[in-house]
Parts: sequence; C-alpha cells; structure tokens
Amino acid sequence: MTQLPDRVEVVIVGAGFAGLAAATALRAAGARVAVLEARDRVGGRVWTRPVGAARFDLGGQWIGPGQRRLAALTERLGVATFPTYTAGDKLLDDGARVARYKGAIPALRPLELAELHLALRRLDRMMARVSARDPASSPGAAELDRATVAEHARRIRGRRVRALLDVAVGAIFGVEPAELSLLWFLAYLRAGGGLLALSEIEGGAQERRFVDGAQTIADRWAAELGDAVHLAAPVRRIAHAGTGADAGVIVTSDRGAIAARRAIVAIPPPLAARIELDPAPPARRVQLVQRAAMGAIVKVIATYDRPFWRDRGCSGEVVSTRGPVALAFDNSSHDLRQPALLAFVQAEAARRWLTAPGHDEAGVLAQLARWFGDEARHPSAVAVADWAAEPWSLGCPVAVMSPRALTSTGASLREPVGRVHFAGTETATEWTGYIEGALESGERAAREVLRAI
Amino acid sequence: MTQLPDRVEVVIVGAGFAGLAAATALRAAGARVAVLEARDRVGGRVWTRPVGAARFDLGGQWIGPGQRRLAALTERLGVATFPTYTAGDKLLDDGARVARYKGAIPALRPLELAELHLALRRLDRMMARVSARDPASSPGAAELDRATVAEHARRIRGRRVRALLDVAVGAIFGVEPAELSLLWFLAYLRAGGGLLALSEIEGGAQERRFVDGAQTIADRWAAELGDAVHLAAPVRRIAHAGTGADAGVIVTSDRGAIAARRAIVAIPPPLAARIELDPAPPARRVQLVQRAAMGAIVKVIATYDRPFWRDRGCSGEVVSTRGPVALAFDNSSHDLRQPALLAFVQAEAARRWLTAPGHDEAGVLAQLARWFGDEARHPSAVAVADWAAEPWSLGCPVAVMSPRALTSTGASLREPVGRVHFAGTETATEWTGYIEGALESGERAAREVLRAI
Repeated sequence: MTQLPDRVEVVIVGAGFAGLAAATALRAAGARVAVLEARDRVGGRVWTRPVGAARFDLGGQWIGPGQRRLAALTERLGVATFPTYTAGDKLLDDGARVARYKGAIPALRPLELAELHLALRRLDRMMARVSARDPASSPGAAELDRATVAEHARRIRGRRVRALLDVAVGAIFGVEPAELSLLWFLAYLRAGGGLLALSEIEGGAQERRFVDGAQTIADRWAAELGDAVHLAAPVRRIAHAGTGADAGVIVTSDRGAIAARRAIVAIPPPLAARIELDPAPPARRVQLVQRAAMGAIVKVIATYDRPFWRDRGCSGEVVSTRGPVALAFDNSSHDLRQPALLAFVQAEAARRWLTAPGHDEAGVLAQLARWFGDEARHPSAVAVADWAAEPWSLGCPVAVMSPRALTSTGASLREPVGRVHFAGTETATEWTGYIEGALESGERAAREVLRAI
Repeated sequence: MTQLPDRVEVVIVGAGFAGLAAATALRAAGARVAVLEARDRVGGRVWTRPVGAARFDLGGQWIGPGQRRLAALTERLGVATFPTYTAGDKLLDDGARVARYKGAIPALRPLELAELHLALRRLDRMMARVSARDPASSPGAAELDRATVAEHARRIRGRRVRALLDVAVGAIFGVEPAELSLLWFLAYLRAGGGLLALSEIEGGAQERRFVDGAQTIADRWAAELGDAVHLAAPVRRIAHAGTGADAGVIVTSDRGAIAARRAIVAIPPPLAARIELDPAPPARRVQLVQRAAMGAIVKVIATYDRPFWRDRGCSGEVVSTRGPVALAFDNSSHDLRQPALLAFVQAEAARRWLTAPGHDEAGVLAQLARWFGDEARHPSAVAVADWAAEPWSLGCPVAVMSPRALTSTGASLREPVGRVHFAGTETATEWTGYIEGALESGERAAREVLRAI
C-alpha cells in the first residue's frame, strides 16, 4: 500500500462512482486529491466477482437510456455493453398460479389491468407536480411528505395490483411502501423518469449490462487516478483546522491523517453520519441523517450449464408477489458461455433472510424450479450478496427517506458543513439512487469545491 | 482524570441513568466495572444547570406515579421532590384566541370535546391490544406497523382536535405524528399507561419535580461508583477478542482501551450505531438502528422576578396549537425563590429553530407575553437547551421508530451481539423513553451479563 500524503488540496471519502467522479473532475481542474476508501476495492455499491465461468455483478449492473454520464464514461473507458436478455415470455407468480405474459404490464384480469393503469396514471400526474431538484418546494409538499407510499396505495383496488406495487418498490428501494415518504418517492420517480422507466428492461433502467461487469468501469477509472486512491483507509473523523488562508480540514483515517483545504464525503448518508465532524454539524443535518435508512436487498446469482428456461420460451424475467424471490432475470454472460439466473430477495424478505443466514438459498432455488423446471435446483455455482450485512454500505440499493424528513431537514442533504461537501447518489437530482446519480453528485460536489478554493 | 483500568469484568458505555443502573447492579453482585462517558458530566439526557437564582433542569425533570424504580432511587439518595405547580387556570391557544380551562381536557366546543373523547377511547382500546414487551406479537401488528400515527389521526374529525394530538405527540416524542409507526406509538403509550397519563401533570408523568434538579440524583449516584466512572471518554470501537475462558471484548475510547468480559452499550440506538463493532453486527441490527431517529425538542427556561402569571389566576400551563412554543409550564423553584416559566419548542418548530440559532428566542417571549402579559418579555435570565444539537444525544427526548422497523427488525433492539449487550430507555418495556425506563433497561442488561459471566 502506498503511503498517505501529508497534504493535498481535496480529500474525497469513498471510491464509489461519486468519489471517483469528484476526484476526476478536481484533477482535471489541476487540484491535488486523495481518495480514501474503506474497502479493499473501489466501486462501492458496484461489485463484480467470478461466479461459475464468468464475472457477474453482485451490485449495480445496468445502464438505461438517459444515463448520459455513465454512457460517456463507459465508452471512454472502452467497456462494452450488451442488451439485457428479453426474448420470450415473462412470468407472473401470484402465489396461486404462474401466468405468462409479454410486454411491460403483467398478466392480470381486465379489471385489475384497468386499475393498474389508473394507479400508474395517478402516480405520473402526482410526479409531474413534484420537483426532483427541490421536492420541498413542490405544491402540497408538506402533506405529501406526511404520507407514506403505503397510505397512498390503500386507494388502489385489487390485492394483486397493490402486491405489484410492493414488488416494484422492493426492487427499486429495498424497502416496503410503508417505509417511504410519498413526496420522496415521487421526487425519486421524477429524477429517474417514472415508475415504469425505473421498473422496465427495454427502454428502462435495466436495458443494458456491462461485458465483464460494472466494476471494470470503476477499476479502469481508478487506475487513471493512480496512487491518489488509497484502499483500506476508513475515515473516522474530519476536523476543521486553521484560519484565514490556512483554513482547512484534517481527515483522519485508519491509515493516518491528511490535511486538505476541503473534503468531499461521497458515501451514503447513514454511513456519513458515522464520521465524526468537528465542530459538530448543524442539528438539522444530524436530524436528517437519522431519517435516511438503507434498504435491504439480497442478490442471488445461480449459474447453470445451459439456459434451460429459454428452451421453454421464457425470458427468465419473473415478477412474484410471494417470497422469498420477488424478481428474477436471465443474467447470462454476454456471450452465453455462462448461462445464469438472477434472483432478488428484497425488503422484509431480505431482512428475514438475514436472521438466519443462508437458510433461504434452497427456497430461492425451489422458486426458480417452480418457474423453470427442476433443472433450476442444480446450479453449477451460487453467489449470494447480502448488502445489508456490508459494513461499508449498510444496505442497498439506496438510502430512503421516511415521512417528513425531506420537507423538514432535506435541505441539509447537499448543504456543505463548513469545508466539508457531500456527494453520493442520494444527493443527486437526476437518477437519484443510480450509478448515473452518483456521477452527477460527484461532479456537482467538485464544482462546489472548485468555486471555493 | 483518573487513569482507565487495563481490565475489568464489564465495561458500560454511557453514564446516563441506564448506564448507572447497570453499573450499580453489577457492582452489587461483585463485578468490577468501568463506566465510560463521552461527556464531561454524568446524567445523559438529564442535565441541570443554574439559571437566574436557582438550578433548573434543561433535560428530563419529572417523576410520575408508577415510576417505582426512580422513586426508590430518589428516596435512597435523599433527593426531595415537590409537586409541579398546577393552581389556577390553564390556557389553550389555537392561534385565533386564548381560552381558559381547568382539568385534563382543554377548552373545546362540545362537538370537539366529544370527538376528542372518542379519539382517546379509540386509542385506549387499540393500546390495550398491544404488548409493550413484544409489540410485534400483538394481533394485527404488521398492519399497525405499516401505518403512521398521522394516518390514524386523519380519522379524527375537527382540525383543533387533531392539532391537540400534534401537540401531545410533539411533547412526548419531539416529532410529528407522520414520523411514528402506529404500532410503536401504541406500545409506547402502553409502556407508560396511556396518552393522558403521559400528557398530564396530576396523576401523570409530569406530577412531581426534583428539588435542585434531576442531575443531583445522577451526581450522587455516580459518586457512589467513585473512580469506576470515567468522563470525557467517548467509546469508538468494541472488538470481540480471545476464545474459550479468555473470550471477551476490547473497548476502545478516546482515553484508551479496556479489556472486559462483556460490554453494555447504554446510549440511544442512533448513537450506538456509531460505535464500530467487530465483527460487524447482524444485518438486522444494522437495519434497525438506521430506522430509529431521535426527536427534536428545544427547552427554554425564562426566570422572572415574580410569578406574575399566578396573579392572573393562571397555572402557567399552556397548550398552543400554533408555534413556536407548543407547551408552557410554571417551572419555579420549589421554594418560589426563583419564579420561572418553561416553554417547549418541539418537532418541526424545533428543527426550524435550529436552522437559525436563537432567532426564535424573541418569538418565545412574545408568546409568553400573549398569554401572561408584557412582563413576560423581560426575563431576568433565559436558558435554551437545543437537544438536537447535542452530539452525545443527537436529539431528545427519545429515539422513535418509523413504520415497519419494529415488526421487521425490532427484536434486535434488546438482542445482545456476541458479548455486547444493549440498555437505554429505548430498550425498556415499562416507561420506555422515561428515566424510569432507563433504570429498567440498565437492570435488565446487568442481569443478562450476570447470567452470562
């Protein structure tokens, strides 16, 4: 490991996509930076490792239309993408039976379909009135922020339609609708183009994947930053020091301290809360970070000798309103040399899973077998990523806000505290919660710092 | 400051009432303990200091019927109590006008009164079905935990009746109804004997005060523990170490490390979350502590040369549905040598206060003047305690749970993680959130440890 420098211009905490974006923008402007990363790898909530005969993403893995920063970065770094597999029928499992369907909308009875369209139109209309940049300024913001998504969903008639919303919320946030402020939910949808865009493969956030996994992007990018990136260096404390022209911060990590003019904290708010700031941050920020909580998602990748689900005319995509698996996808390698299925255990099911580690792996395979036949019970390899057990993420995919956090304290999300700035996908105004949002946030924090130094 | 010992049997983190109770119980059983306290004082959310010519409580200050542990402790330590002043009329300020009333129920129109009684009866009936010890086992627990108190309150007809609930929730929790799980709220009411008992002076949780302030109790109690209590020693890390007969923990503080067989963490959950545990705690606990958030209350004490409000036949008690002050009390010293009023700015009003420190002090005095006359504008002294800005509390009076936290992860609240046990009033099953609950929790954690070592 390289020695930490004594002094740089800007210390960046976290080598996820937000931190790497901030570091790159600052370096491009001529600033000397140090990126301190707690883990022994870069990438944050992106994490690729070998499963079976290929490399698979156990964290973020998709790129969709409109994610222009990520598209440009990927192209610049020479990382190829390929379309998520969609040929064939999708399945809807409501516990009682498994139905086949095509297109974006699951197989429902006509009245349920009508209700689903109505619910989606209602959400779209509400979303259109909410500002993603400053949700608290939206008309009716306080009342929307006093409601949960569950409360809103009680208007939806049809148990199966409501169950579909549960699945979508679980997949996008890793929580149940009851845990989300309705205002925050609408702002998040707005930032990503709507509930369908966030839920869909074709034309949506799951449209394409990265050959060899998304971490290739982070790895190549970090290589450009060279010895400015320091691994296994969790930051514990950021203290303001000096006055006038000497004013700056001392950033203390397990590998030593660095003096800098400014710091950018590019990690999720609940994790940022654990870094001691001196002087203590304003009470409003202290209240905010206690009201942002990471979701829980367990990602299971099972590799097989052949893509037997394709033989049955199935695309591999399943929406299931009974657990533990709520969503499944064909996750084969780009060249099909390693066929694979991907299963998501999310929200409450993920937390239950966590209480007895591993006890549900058989349950996951049993569900895959219910959908695709007995061959699913015999994978060549299985990888399980339990993000809520990751001490340097505290959960996945994103920190969600509970009722009244946003209108009461939300302004502190992006507000610098003295010479400490905040990045991370939670602070983004476009594609909040996605890799794209992380990039936006890092660039924005870098601009703040460049204006100041 | 005394040197930290190298090794004890049990390290206790936090010298609030929970920590002191645990330490006392363990010492009584012959165990050698060390109490590590981050602040330079004991008492935690109890904090007394001079204002004008007497000592006043800027934190917890009341004892009510049924708080038998606190009553016994107070008596043993020779701390006298006296009744909270109640002679005279109470005031209800609904923004439009100020009305006088007597008794427990504010001055409302007959229909509003009927609705208020109905709402209280409904809450009592719901509360009676909820277990304070294990709320998640109550009938209908999952559905109750998916609702917020705000959602429940929408059934209440009458804006002024709902506003009174807002005031009560703000006073008891420092948050708005939208921030609370309905199940958690009902369990909390159950643990303290109901909403009226928690709201009332006579026969309720605000019945008596402590001569010279509640911290006298903590100070005398800590003196009994002598050099086992170490101040200015914030704990950063608790690592499991050793195996078999040598198995134990290493507790690292800013003043050095102590080896022990077990540790008891006796601080609020959001603060406990910031202590690094090695190995990392189970994901369920990680998810839980992200879903418990401290309330915000600003306590303002204004001292006067004479108790002019009493001349007007007022008890000093005011319920106000317009801010910033939501509640006021006569808070004169026991001997009336220092007349004083106490004003609470709570929940959203407290957070707004926090964004512009001090900007509302004039607003507080203006409200007191509206109720008690112009003399209120000229206090001899004013003390302001902004608990949300306290880095070693993160808020006040208690950590509240958002929807779905309790039924999903709540079991982890009291569940030891290896050799680390948890106390603090949030973990109590009787008088959760009160000094009494802190005492119960400390005694319970001490019993857990004694059974284990």
